[in-house]
Amino acid sequence: MSGTKPAKSGEDRLIERYFRPLARDPAALGLADDVALYSPPAGCELVLKTDAIVGGVHFLADDPADAVARKALRVNLSDLAAKGATPAGFLLALALPAEIGEEWLADFARGLGADADAYGCPLLGGDTDRTPGPVTVSIAMIGHVPRGKMVRRSGAKAGDTVVVTGTIGDAALGLKLRREPEHPALARLDRAAKMHLADRYLLPRPRLVVTDVLREFASASIDISDGLAGDLAKLAAASGVGARIEAKAVPLSPAAWAALAGDAALVETVLTGGDDYEILATVSPDRLASFQAAAARAGVELTAIGRIEAGEGIEVRDEHGRAIALARLSYSHF
Amino acid sequence: MSGTKPAKSGEDRLIERYFRPLARDPAALGLADDVALYSPPAGCELVLKTDAIVGGVHFLADDPADAVARKALRVNLSDLAAKGATPAGFLLALALPAEIGEEWLADFARGLGADADAYGCPLLGGDTDRTPGPVTVSIAMIGHVPRGKMVRRSGAKAGDTVVVTGTIGDAALGLKLRREPEHPALARLDRAAKMHLADRYLLPRPRLVVTDVLREFASASIDISDGLAGDLAKLAAASGVGARIEAKAVPLSPAAWAALAGDAALVETVLTGGDDYEILATVSPDRLASFQAAAARAGVELTAIGRIEAGEGIEVRDEHGRAIALARLSYSHF
Repeated sequence: MSGTKPAKSGEDRLIERYFRPLARDPAALGLADDVALYSPPAGCELVLKTDAIVGGVHFLADDPADAVARKALRVNLSDLAAKGATPAGFLLALALPAEIGEEWLADFARGLGADADAYGCPLLGGDTDRTPGPVTVSIAMIGHVPRGKMVRRSGAKAGDTVVVTGTIGDAALGLKLRREPEHPALARLDRAAKMHLADRYLLPRPRLVVTDVLREFASASIDISDGLAGDLAKLAAASGVGARIEAKAVPLSPAAWAALAGDAALVETVLTGGDDYEILATVSPDRLASFQAAAARAGVELTAIGRIEAGEGIEVRDEHGRAIALARLSYSHF
Repeated sequence: MSGTKPAKSGEDRLIERYFRPLARDPAALGLADDVALYSPPAGCELVLKTDAIVGGVHFLADDPADAVARKALRVNLSDLAAKGATPAGFLLALALPAEIGEEWLADFARGLGADADAYGCPLLGGDTDRTPGPVTVSIAMIGHVPRGKMVRRSGAKAGDTVVVTGTIGDAALGLKLRREPEHPALARLDRAAKMHLADRYLLPRPRLVVTDVLREFASASIDISDGLAGDLAKLAAASGVGARIEAKAVPLSPAAWAALAGDAALVETVLTGGDDYEILATVSPDRLASFQAAAARAGVELTAIGRIEAGEGIEVRDEHGRAIALARLSYSHF
């Protein structure tokens, strides 16, 4: 027989054109069934994470579409990295306003595909919806970790050294620069410094290269998404301990140094601003040097910034040993 | 020491109050880490699905919050049911406009918790965000299926019988009734019929009770979310076959019969309207009776509505054997 063939809906066309080419992993079933079918590796547990980004809230309306896709993936990958987990793939629920055109979608899919390849996390399935609101990108990330080896928030012990990867505060300063381009200390930065900060806000760099190293050395770990101070407080609370860090030990990029040299008050933005997507971890002090050497071999600088203390709460000290008063520890949209 | 304790953000309070009580499964880690940690059962594959529902698109602004939560879960559970999979848990990404108050959230969490318990699919993790748009509920559902036993869209063979669970068209008529309360044939329905149709739109009934039966008998299966005709066309296309169904064999509720008696043109709404969340499956004709008996033992009526044919495309025939022309096979928001 040859009856009515399904007229392809707009959604079918959109999936076929932009997303099916990314769904090359066998688990995706070519996006031709209702679900993905995933076989976890033997001896592993699954690490599951969902994080959504919303236009006007987590990214700006004029951010390039490929960067929006990448940010949506990377904020989730950053959590996997901090847990010592390896990405396996992701599901995408994408809500699109009517005014989004083909060009935006093509750019979005290109960014998504590039990062899916770069980080080895294929698109496994998805859902595309209309919304009267802003673009909303919800990612559910699936990763795996050898059984019993996930690095938790809750393993820090009094006496452990507190370390961070990379540099802190760049993304928060980058966002501030976009929102307040006339801010005196930021406006005075040279072009390269401004670009560095803006780029760190636009595109997180999830530290998946230290996944194995974290599993080997870290007693506890969290990714820094809501601000160094706030995420340290969360790690300390989950571990039932306190923490003290030295502000001057916090690693800064040359651009952030220049910004703080112009306005010392920006230290609060650096310490609490969020969007760093670096890793905050703790390690027994006798293993610190090996931890740092192993991270360096993986290409990531690991800086000791303080220590875990018995008790509760966190303290950030200035170079005179005085506690810095922070109006808040981290950013919250609520 | 006793330094600064984290001032709880609005998001932290919201999670603690409404969502942590639902996260009792060990895999959720009490929502106290960044991720969920899930151990799949031995010998299983994972079935993964994401579907989002958006206010004003997939539910109406005045739908009760507990029903919104339940619908969000159930549309995903329906996919698992059709694949022969058992739910393991879910991740929730919830975007909330500023005007959503505590009462709405309390109702939402109550509905979510009730269904999580009823269907054995605990909350494993989540993300709560502000949005300038409507409430957007993205669910990522994780299920499992014995290795190699998932029921696919693509297994239908020429000669197979086409069956559906339950009754078709109720939800689409219920939506039409809410949107066009003055529609003559719908306005004339009695109160019980109207309530039945409205309720079927508000609350899908995922057919998880026939999961095992489907794995044993079905050659192919899909849940009916976009309309019987359209989803049959998808199943047929994925299987490389055609299909012919008899309109008069399609099982209808008394309320839907009454609506069609008043206006025969509503048959198009019934056949293509969607939101049924029943299961459309195919079975070798010699196993039809056993399939129906097993489904009946599980409490679900299974009705034969047509057969799979060699070729391609689908045809819906009226009682005179003539093809019914459908303007479209299913609903698309795009």
